[in-house]
Amino acid sequence: MAEVKFKRLALIGIGLIGSSIARGVRRHNLAAEIVCAARTADTRRVAKEIGIVDAAYENPADAVKGADLVILCTPVGTYATLAEQIAPFLEKGAIVTDVGSVKGAVVKAVGLHIPEGVDFIPGHPVAGTEKSGPAAGFAELFINRWCILTPCDQSSDASLERLKNFWVALGSKVEIMEPAHHDLVLAITSHIPHLIAYNIVGTADDLEGVTQSEVIKYSAGGFRDFTRIAASDPTMWRDVFLHNKEAVLEMLGRFTEDLAQLQRAIRWEDGDTLFNIFSRTRAIRRQIIDAGQETPEPDFGRVLKSDD
Amino acid sequence: MAEVKFKRLALIGIGLIGSSIARGVRRHNLAAEIVCAARTADTRRVAKEIGIVDAAYENPADAVKGADLVILCTPVGTYATLAEQIAPFLEKGAIVTDVGSVKGAVVKAVGLHIPEGVDFIPGHPVAGTEKSGPAAGFAELFINRWCILTPCDQSSDASLERLKNFWVALGSKVEIMEPAHHDLVLAITSHIPHLIAYNIVGTADDLEGVTQSEVIKYSAGGFRDFTRIAASDPTMWRDVFLHNKEAVLEMLGRFTEDLAQLQRAIRWEDGDTLFNIFSRTRAIRRQIIDAGQETPEPDFGRVLKSDD
Repeated sequence: MAEVKFKRLALIGIGLIGSSIARGVRRHNLAAEIVCAARTADTRRVAKEIGIVDAAYENPADAVKGADLVILCTPVGTYATLAEQIAPFLEKGAIVTDVGSVKGAVVKAVGLHIPEGVDFIPGHPVAGTEKSGPAAGFAELFINRWCILTPCDQSSDASLERLKNFWVALGSKVEIMEPAHHDLVLAITSHIPHLIAYNIVGTADDLEGVTQSEVIKYSAGGFRDFTRIAASDPTMWRDVFLHNKEAVLEMLGRFTEDLAQLQRAIRWEDGDTLFNIFSRTRAIRRQIIDAGQETPEPDFGRVLKSDD
Repeated sequence: MAEVKFKRLALIGIGLIGSSIARGVRRHNLAAEIVCAARTADTRRVAKEIGIVDAAYENPADAVKGADLVILCTPVGTYATLAEQIAPFLEKGAIVTDVGSVKGAVVKAVGLHIPEGVDFIPGHPVAGTEKSGPAAGFAELFINRWCILTPCDQSSDASLERLKNFWVALGSKVEIMEPAHHDLVLAITSHIPHLIAYNIVGTADDLEGVTQSEVIKYSAGGFRDFTRIAASDPTMWRDVFLHNKEAVLEMLGRFTEDLAQLQRAIRWEDGDTLFNIFSRTRAIRRQIIDAGQETPEPDFGRVLKSDD
């Protein structure tokens, strides 16, 4: 895949996603040089210590100089400012992309600042874990996960093809989508799940009749599953909800409407409605497993330390 | 643990939980004879084929004859009828218990029928997977999980001690609790998580702007986590909600109230409120991991087949 190779990759932000890209790029030799920009000295130190970047800069403008691929890997709320900062230093012919979970707002915020002669292709690898920071990344994160690209009028066909090959080289499957449709799809498959997970953990934390120690002890009844995605980075997720407001509110409206139906069925002891709703879901999980997006193992194949 | 050993264990129902008990009892030699009752011929055949029971009966009355430990392992909605059926055939001195996720309603439904001279101790091992049926069980299911016993005025101290030792021998930690308190604790740690998981899977299935194939492809964004508990047995969960109505509606009210606060914060772009709520949850997950109730591995240590 010689044609994929970039001269200098600049990762703006080197958390879970940025550092996973860096590891994958190193492993598959997709860039001659990998540099990053990170706000805190500690992050820059860790990134250099674990050897995933050749250089780490405080100023993103320094990172993008001479780069032919620039990837924004910070919370989407930082994009507008970052784009403005790096714009004067972008090389002619460079590709600028990102990994944000929201696309519509990003296209606008970043696109505004991208100069003539630079290609801009918004992107979103649908992959991650609940961990954050440069040490949490791993090269295999993107294998068999989908990466959605949402090209705009600042994306050339040649650059799109090159970026597509880049993600395929990291192990991903690539899908092209309209930004607005991406935001709707991700609202239901990712944003609402995170919102209700954060919410139930908060509800449980606030109870006065049930102690926190009881919530923890009996969490194997289902609750603990929700704490995983609710342990995700709070800044990243605040920004997601602020920048995908319309689609999230639309999907949340449907969710609460459906929940009201379940609530009513419980209140009126309508067992048939409950049974019918509860019977629809096994088939969907089966399809997710068949699509290679989930493990068939019971309980996620989870192994508890104390089981030893 | 010689004092734990029973003469004849009768499991009424031999699904995930019943068959896991049978396997554990065999492994630790906790009963001289293990029998079960199961409604369908197929279940009885499987239970005998995999060798976890010495005999399998269609009629629960036949199973309890001569048994000194009887465990109800069917959906809680069947308890009243079952208790009435088995009552005339229970041995003097036998212990009757159950594994239902609801305790208040169960104490009433079963207790009514338990004759003088028979001990009744409602119980609930907080353990499980999303799988059902006799082939899904495994002896390790209860190791380091909590089993809650909710003794009533039909429970003698000696029998309670014996049943406690039985669960400890299967690997569990045992907690004694009031039935009403159990139902409140489990409403938030288990019943509401299942309800909202079933609900979001239903919401996603009903969308017209997003295809089911898209929901499946991009489920790694968070949605797939919810499909696990939403793949649980629909009959069992219908019965849980019908029999723990008050506590579930109370907790659901709090959940939707909190969700309305998040919804409002999104609508009014109140990033601070979002950030504060999202920041509370990592500590709770950390405590669940420290308590041995969750794996510290990122993404539940999930390994996808297609990652190979």
